[in-house]
Amino acid sequence: MKLTAHQLEQFDRDGYVFFPELFSPAEVAVLTAELPRILALDRPEILRAESGEIRGALAMERYSEPFARLLRHPRLVEPAHQVLGGRVYGHQYKVIAKEPFGELDFPWHQDFASWRANDGMPEPLAMNYAVFLDEVSEFNGPITLIPGSHRDGCLPSEARDLPGSTPLYSLDKETVRRLAATGGMVAPKGPPGSGIFFHGCMAHASGPNLSPWPRHIVYLTCNRVDNYIRRPTRPDHFANRDFTAIEPLADDCLMDLAGSQAAEVNA
Amino acid sequence: MKLTAHQLEQFDRDGYVFFPELFSPAEVAVLTAELPRILALDRPEILRAESGEIRGALAMERYSEPFARLLRHPRLVEPAHQVLGGRVYGHQYKVIAKEPFGELDFPWHQDFASWRANDGMPEPLAMNYAVFLDEVSEFNGPITLIPGSHRDGCLPSEARDLPGSTPLYSLDKETVRRLAATGGMVAPKGPPGSGIFFHGCMAHASGPNLSPWPRHIVYLTCNRVDNYIRRPTRPDHFANRDFTAIEPLADDCLMDLAGSQAAEVNA
Repeated sequence: MKLTAHQLEQFDRDGYVFFPELFSPAEVAVLTAELPRILALDRPEILRAESGEIRGALAMERYSEPFARLLRHPRLVEPAHQVLGGRVYGHQYKVIAKEPFGELDFPWHQDFASWRANDGMPEPLAMNYAVFLDEVSEFNGPITLIPGSHRDGCLPSEARDLPGSTPLYSLDKETVRRLAATGGMVAPKGPPGSGIFFHGCMAHASGPNLSPWPRHIVYLTCNRVDNYIRRPTRPDHFANRDFTAIEPLADDCLMDLAGSQAAEVNA
Repeated sequence: MKLTAHQLEQFDRDGYVFFPELFSPAEVAVLTAELPRILALDRPEILRAESGEIRGALAMERYSEPFARLLRHPRLVEPAHQVLGGRVYGHQYKVIAKEPFGELDFPWHQDFASWRANDGMPEPLAMNYAVFLDEVSEFNGPITLIPGSHRDGCLPSEARDLPGSTPLYSLDKETVRRLAATGGMVAPKGPPGSGIFFHGCMAHASGPNLSPWPRHIVYLTCNRVDNYIRRPTRPDHFANRDFTAIEPLADDCLMDLAGSQAAEVNA
């Protein structure tokens, strides 16, 4: 999959491109079938709040074949080559779980600020993919973006503790006010399988999940190989130390698994 | 102003009716011109969180002529006569302020549960008006409703402390899940001056204000005179003890004030 010239222009101008139904319902089903199992694992990569609320999972390629394939999916990797102008590796790979009626929210931040401070990433030559595993609506805490906010580069931020995770470098109110006055806000919504590609300096936030409907989103951060991190301070499931370029798989790599999952269930 | 047969049917079925631009920009301006003054008053009717964040104001008719008039506005009072089948008085009258980036949110609840428990209101013969003083968008914590949830009457609830206010009787997750599975959710959005009329047993909630844009909403609860409260437990700015029926003013009662406000500014 290649981004069109129009989509590349959109990414440059707005800092993001939204793809409703980037993955088919059958492909999403291969991934969601894994969720109950992986979120119940007793491993350091599984994030839980003190209350026991599930917050998500990191480095799923270590314990899930479907997610290992998604990480190498050409619909994610090939656009990254185009946008970042070189080969990429997976810097961080996670599922964020906003449980029904869950309190998990995120203040305004640019991810690159945390990658630089926590991991020693030199330049904002990394980008994010968000792949919806559930329908994302206005009621379950959609990710909210300020279009064009990446164009100022990395703005001053302050470390803020995130329960069950590593510090998040968040933007101050005056900065967000200024950015939103120009760019406004958008919260892309869509069915499972939709995707958002966004810049590492995109200002974004999200509120809690007010609804009885879960909101699982996969986030993959692709970093250009020559922009590998220099001073990692956190465990490698938060910040990968293997800088080997991702070799994309075939476009049907997830569907290949659908048959074997069905066979397991029937066995 | 009278509700049409269609609107009355909608209210019966869904438990609410939304009116984009019920009040004109000029009428809204008469009210918003008062906000900085009244929210800075040092009176028990002004609600502040411990952090000092402004949460709102109660019983504004005591210290604001524009709000005293809005309370008696025919666009609010006459529909209440129709819906409740009798004359009404103002049980509670407030502005809720969701400040920019503010944390104020409300869990799922039916207002009648609190009126019954805190005030001894006998029957759900009271209804709410929400009048937007700011644009309400998906970003500043819109009020979220479950259409049709009023039809089950008053459901079991549990008292929950609200910082700076009186206890709120909130619904449990299973009840909300069941109601939303049938009714879904809506969050009416619109320009300043829009209004929502909703039933006292409407299940509703709202999230925090993620945006730099304030969200002030006036809430007026009209109660049928013969359904006056029997066992008030909280100060009368939370639960009015004057059960005199409201005499509606003329439809242009707010615009009458626009001239005198301008004169004051120019004086």
